[in-house]
Amino acid sequence: MSERLVVVGGDAAGMSAASNARRRRPDLEIVALERGRYTSYAACGIPYTVSGTIGSLDDLVARSPQEFRDRQRIDVRTGHEVLAVDPKDRSVTVRDLERGREYSLGYDELLIATGGSPLRPDVPGVDLPFVHGVQTLEDGKRLVEASAEGHVESVVVVGAGYIGLEMAEAFVLWGAEVTVVDRSSEVMEALDPELGAKVREAMVRRGIDVMLDTGVVGFEEGRVLLDGGASLPADLVVLGTGLAPASRLAVDAGIPTGHKGAIRVDHRQRTEVEGVWAAGDCADTFHRVLKRRVSLALGTVANRTGRVAGINIGGGYASFPGALGTAITRLCALEISLTGLTETRARAEGFEVDATTIEASTRADYYPDNSTMTVKLVAEVGTGRVLGGQILGGAGSAKRIDTIATAITASMTVEDLVHLDLAYAPPFSPVWDPIATAARTLL
Amino acid sequence: MSERLVVVGGDAAGMSAASNARRRRPDLEIVALERGRYTSYAACGIPYTVSGTIGSLDDLVARSPQEFRDRQRIDVRTGHEVLAVDPKDRSVTVRDLERGREYSLGYDELLIATGGSPLRPDVPGVDLPFVHGVQTLEDGKRLVEASAEGHVESVVVVGAGYIGLEMAEAFVLWGAEVTVVDRSSEVMEALDPELGAKVREAMVRRGIDVMLDTGVVGFEEGRVLLDGGASLPADLVVLGTGLAPASRLAVDAGIPTGHKGAIRVDHRQRTEVEGVWAAGDCADTFHRVLKRRVSLALGTVANRTGRVAGINIGGGYASFPGALGTAITRLCALEISLTGLTETRARAEGFEVDATTIEASTRADYYPDNSTMTVKLVAEVGTGRVLGGQILGGAGSAKRIDTIATAITASMTVEDLVHLDLAYAPPFSPVWDPIATAARTLL
Repeated sequence: MSERLVVVGGDAAGMSAASNARRRRPDLEIVALERGRYTSYAACGIPYTVSGTIGSLDDLVARSPQEFRDRQRIDVRTGHEVLAVDPKDRSVTVRDLERGREYSLGYDELLIATGGSPLRPDVPGVDLPFVHGVQTLEDGKRLVEASAEGHVESVVVVGAGYIGLEMAEAFVLWGAEVTVVDRSSEVMEALDPELGAKVREAMVRRGIDVMLDTGVVGFEEGRVLLDGGASLPADLVVLGTGLAPASRLAVDAGIPTGHKGAIRVDHRQRTEVEGVWAAGDCADTFHRVLKRRVSLALGTVANRTGRVAGINIGGGYASFPGALGTAITRLCALEISLTGLTETRARAEGFEVDATTIEASTRADYYPDNSTMTVKLVAEVGTGRVLGGQILGGAGSAKRIDTIATAITASMTVEDLVHLDLAYAPPFSPVWDPIATAARTLL
Repeated sequence: MSERLVVVGGDAAGMSAASNARRRRPDLEIVALERGRYTSYAACGIPYTVSGTIGSLDDLVARSPQEFRDRQRIDVRTGHEVLAVDPKDRSVTVRDLERGREYSLGYDELLIATGGSPLRPDVPGVDLPFVHGVQTLEDGKRLVEASAEGHVESVVVVGAGYIGLEMAEAFVLWGAEVTVVDRSSEVMEALDPELGAKVREAMVRRGIDVMLDTGVVGFEEGRVLLDGGASLPADLVVLGTGLAPASRLAVDAGIPTGHKGAIRVDHRQRTEVEGVWAAGDCADTFHRVLKRRVSLALGTVANRTGRVAGINIGGGYASFPGALGTAITRLCALEISLTGLTETRARAEGFEVDATTIEASTRADYYPDNSTMTVKLVAEVGTGRVLGGQILGGAGSAKRIDTIATAITASMTVEDLVHLDLAYAPPFSPVWDPIATAARTLL
């Protein structure tokens, strides 16, 4: 009898793993259990379907369950939720949501790829139907439908992180009045606050109201209740309050978890329990600068750790060397990216740092359609090692963060950055690339 | 009496050095001797002034002689040509071209930054007035004037390298019939031929005639004579036949030269003669992959080696760790870039290599304004070390070469590239960045 791999979760990490395992082991029986209706979708595309930039949610599905069945003989079961894992018995308890029946399924290898759970504020009214998450394609569908019904004039977004701000812009483009409410004192806490301020200014220019240092204490139909007794009218609420690793199954099964509750895995994506693997947002990840395992919820990491798990499960050898938390977005005509540690985070982690922020041109100064970009570099005192970078600017600026990410991966110093042989021609860059200019300034 | 630095050549390398030396030594007397009328100009912008993309040649001047005099007390003498260097006497012989007089000028430190000399084919008629180089701003001025006179209907470009092809496109945009003639069997020999073919196809689509395997044997007024007895009509000819290091002064003074006649310098830009430094296109450069000194004519290298020379002359310490020949351009709606070694060059240099070429999207597949990009990676057999990369594609593709340049600088392997934490969001990249996809394919 052939061995069986059971994958829990049919998105990026789970299906990357399933595909990679299949490629190496044609004999393996592979069952992928997905609670929702979709597999392998780009949740990060949801804001663009609301704004209308992307025509249809279906465009976000990279590969459908049927394609996995037909092309890779992967037994994808959508609408099947795993209720429990029994590592001793090597089995999972599954509920077929449509038929309402439960069954037990044995495994030889198990991959937990359950992703993240939206953090829902624990306040009255959070489960009212006008309060929406932005996690799954089902969430996206409900948002698109709710906005299509046409009663949506005012939208409140709770949470000023990436996804919250992307949804805020999407609803402004769609034609609503939008207010973003956040408990912190600046938007995008992933950035240093002086750069967050530039993002906020761009949002305000776009017509988005931003309320900071403001907590949400509850929801009533048509209203968001704020601390201090004030309230905001809202036809629709979007929760952009972040994700926690969806590790309940693992915890209940006695599989150890670590930072922020993420499942602890090693460099091959093995948990500490025999035969059980984990990958994606539910698992922890080695941070190349912090040199310890942290929870990082990023699609890129999910795809890559899923691939590593799949190669290993398939009998090959792959090891995941870690990540930097590199991220990028475009908000209100501003490109934004970061990698490694911000100055704030580096100091909080006990690093002594030097930092500099410069403004430069995306092209040669004299070249048309030139725009301004801001580069912030953070380096360790003494060693000069680059710890992080942040870029904000016009078209053609933010993807340059990859150069800094590559440099950090190679443990380069600020001096090394000055000497990088980066590409120059008038339509692409000043003769001193903005990253090299930032490095020269920091020296 | 204060010490005197004499700089020969007032463009990128010379003036970077002068500025950096001034910053460190307020006491130094600095004289910069420039044969032409301009200082610190972006010669690479000349094609854009012909096409009209940039309004005026004056825009290409980063800093004028008067600005250097006023702001940095640098005695810039334009129209002054250095005829000879006497390292024993520590003096140069200068001709004031306007006044027609010669004088001797002593130095304590001498920087030779004479750049490159256009390679003019040694054929009859090459000095006729309708045959133009594209090296200096004066060349650019003559080209703009010649085209403004309005008798230019047909243009022949000799040489299918960067500058030749950029000029060919500029004249097509300007409204001329353009033919590019080259002795080699494909355009852009800096690329591997299968990528060169894609560039040629883009040029042909733009309406440029390309004649390969064709030598030019002479020029007659209004005609370009080809080998085999054919000829082409031409109201104007552009020579894009490359540059040689302008090292005659050094050779005459007994200063040793190396690869392609470039002045031999060390990591601090010192020549082998006491008190004489060299930087920019006239000097050789350590190639980080070849691990030897070669001649590389690039504005980026000129600026950086000039800076290193200036810091050292100013009493500081700086060392130039080398370059990769990273280059980028945009031709006929195609972005083109390369770094390190092509497959052709790597094999010619005795490397055993694996290479792969992939096509990917610049954005998520479902995101609007997506375009295709081609990535070629070249790696050493055995070590897996990345030796070079080439990128061709639509908007947003070519500047990604910087990631490969940074990886090569850090001696990364193809496996390392797979694991780079590169930025992903739908408007910027597929979830697997095209560079990581190329690396996965090569593995």
